[in-house]
Amino acid sequence: MKPRFQFDVHATDGAARTGVIKMQRGEIRTPAFMPVGTAGTVKAMMPENVRSTGADILLGNTYHLMLRPTAERVAKMGGLHKFMNWDRPILTDSGGFQVMSLTDLRKMTEEGVTFQSHIDGKRLLLTPERSMEIQRLLDSDIVMAFDECTPFPATEEVARLSMERSMRWAKRSREGFNSGEEHASRTALFGIVQGSIYEDLRYRSIEALAEIGFDGYAVGGLAVGEGQDMMFKVLDFTMPRMLSDTPRYLMGVGKPDDIVGAVERGIDMFDCVMPTRSGRTGQGFTRRGPINMKNARHKEDGRPIDSGCSCPACRDYSRAYIHHLIRAGEILGAMLLTWHNLQFYQDLMQGLRTAIAAGSLTKHANDFRAEYQSGDIDALAE
Amino acid sequence: MKPRFQFDVHATDGAARTGVIKMQRGEIRTPAFMPVGTAGTVKAMMPENVRSTGADILLGNTYHLMLRPTAERVAKMGGLHKFMNWDRPILTDSGGFQVMSLTDLRKMTEEGVTFQSHIDGKRLLLTPERSMEIQRLLDSDIVMAFDECTPFPATEEVARLSMERSMRWAKRSREGFNSGEEHASRTALFGIVQGSIYEDLRYRSIEALAEIGFDGYAVGGLAVGEGQDMMFKVLDFTMPRMLSDTPRYLMGVGKPDDIVGAVERGIDMFDCVMPTRSGRTGQGFTRRGPINMKNARHKEDGRPIDSGCSCPACRDYSRAYIHHLIRAGEILGAMLLTWHNLQFYQDLMQGLRTAIAAGSLTKHANDFRAEYQSGDIDALAE
Repeated sequence: MKPRFQFDVHATDGAARTGVIKMQRGEIRTPAFMPVGTAGTVKAMMPENVRSTGADILLGNTYHLMLRPTAERVAKMGGLHKFMNWDRPILTDSGGFQVMSLTDLRKMTEEGVTFQSHIDGKRLLLTPERSMEIQRLLDSDIVMAFDECTPFPATEEVARLSMERSMRWAKRSREGFNSGEEHASRTALFGIVQGSIYEDLRYRSIEALAEIGFDGYAVGGLAVGEGQDMMFKVLDFTMPRMLSDTPRYLMGVGKPDDIVGAVERGIDMFDCVMPTRSGRTGQGFTRRGPINMKNARHKEDGRPIDSGCSCPACRDYSRAYIHHLIRAGEILGAMLLTWHNLQFYQDLMQGLRTAIAAGSLTKHANDFRAEYQSGDIDALAE
Repeated sequence: MKPRFQFDVHATDGAARTGVIKMQRGEIRTPAFMPVGTAGTVKAMMPENVRSTGADILLGNTYHLMLRPTAERVAKMGGLHKFMNWDRPILTDSGGFQVMSLTDLRKMTEEGVTFQSHIDGKRLLLTPERSMEIQRLLDSDIVMAFDECTPFPATEEVARLSMERSMRWAKRSREGFNSGEEHASRTALFGIVQGSIYEDLRYRSIEALAEIGFDGYAVGGLAVGEGQDMMFKVLDFTMPRMLSDTPRYLMGVGKPDDIVGAVERGIDMFDCVMPTRSGRTGQGFTRRGPINMKNARHKEDGRPIDSGCSCPACRDYSRAYIHHLIRAGEILGAMLLTWHNLQFYQDLMQGLRTAIAAGSLTKHANDFRAEYQSGDIDALAE
């Protein structure tokens, strides 16, 4: 019988670890990168092709789905997996982050957040209980607690009040999640550590969440403008205090070198729109740094983006062709570059997993950084 | 050894026929529908998936490609086939139609057409000789003669002058094509019959072209606003006079019932942006007429667009999901609906080929029309 949620660490290397999360709908190799399927689709990708890049799990956005097509409608259509043709695990966020970043006229109280839909202007209320209900209706595999992503920068006082409210909401999230017994019996709930850049607040948040008890713990409130140095600094003091027998998820991160540094510090899971969003605006990710496919330097370059990459963009097409597609605004340009970027991110994760298992993460990470920072995209095609 | 160009008719049924065109880069089953790859891509489709729908040949637009990335650049990159990853035959139009429909400040003389690029405003001259050169640089398999698509409506006098100029240009096209000896030795050139709705002009055009000699003959100047009745009327008097041992191509057509009626009248080849363009705006084609996926009636419909269709949109997704994607402006909506529409068009052609071979085209066509005009899209999902 498949476990509801089981995290097995197979190897550690410094603070980093590699392993597997076993769930009803499939296994998730860690460290894992979750492509973002905002509105029930990983933009410009067929789900079978997302899978072919090596993705074990997707992220779905509660906020977008609750507005359109609505969680009730997704439930009526048999849940998000059937709706979007993805039968493996899906993690859903709580909706809180997008409510704060995408809506106008929002008002936060102890009860929750009232806001106006950015689609039809309708007035709505999102609470921990409603967030749990929505994620249950979507039939999420990993449900995220409803919290406030503390804005950055925040004074210690503001960060404290925000974190404390998030911890009260975490408790209500746990109760709301548990109340959906059938769903709770086969899925998992993650808590989210807040506390901004303040060591003491982060510790108190970790303790508050541990007391409630979750299947995994996310680090929230980062990748919100604090910069990589500060993000790593927060991870440096936060990670050693987090439980080691549960997965640790860094939300909304990030650039390839962010991910490498966070894995070195013990993070197991990531999500980010960067590979998909960049793919639609002409930016490719490579071992040797970003490549801007709009740039005229590519216009007669018959070489692939990366001769070592197995994606169709690199296998079947030249830089010149992809440059042409992006310049002409062709959908196929977004399709190919998104595919490449997702392949790059999954290859990055596979490289990290292999290095951790081999006990060579430090060398691997240093080599990666040196190559990535070189920016020598010509060498890719050799 | 593969022939340069060989048309074998395997069966006829009334005026209709089915057969195969054999060329260096592959065989084209007729009647054939050519998906349009305007700017070096069939929009929103991977070429291997276009092939998987049953397409034997694509159409490329000389006008778009000459402006971006330019024919010289495509040639430098190894030709259009390599550039866009399609190794089967490609037919290119002459550029004349788009120059007249997409540009401002154009001026036609006996020499050719001067016009301003809609992309960068550059002043350019397109002549029969230059059109042949561009199509050679693209390495087109079936080159179209450079002509004027006579606007509709046109007086007989205007239509005559236009047609006579097109015939002079057809001769210059033949000479220009022949001058590229290596390319001409392995590809084909088609002439285009003009003459608007005037019987006598069409006959004179057919005779003028036959005298020059082409590998195939297109019927031009239709599908320009004259309506299906008038189009069929023109085909009724034009087709019996056209050579029967060469392929007959109806340019820019059309809706599914246009194609069925034209096949009954002896047309062998078609191209149209309709399946791809409609796929990007939410319209699907089905055996039971068009289906508007934006319509709210689909929002909770768990059934596929057409349970009898083998495309991924119908195999893996509900109408509700595709409705959601289209409403949300998601690229995957365009991808899935384009794929479905291309599959529908190729299935339509396969049905016609089978019916002609079986000698049952009249019944097949009548049944098709009755079902198509029913508009009963509910019955599709049964």
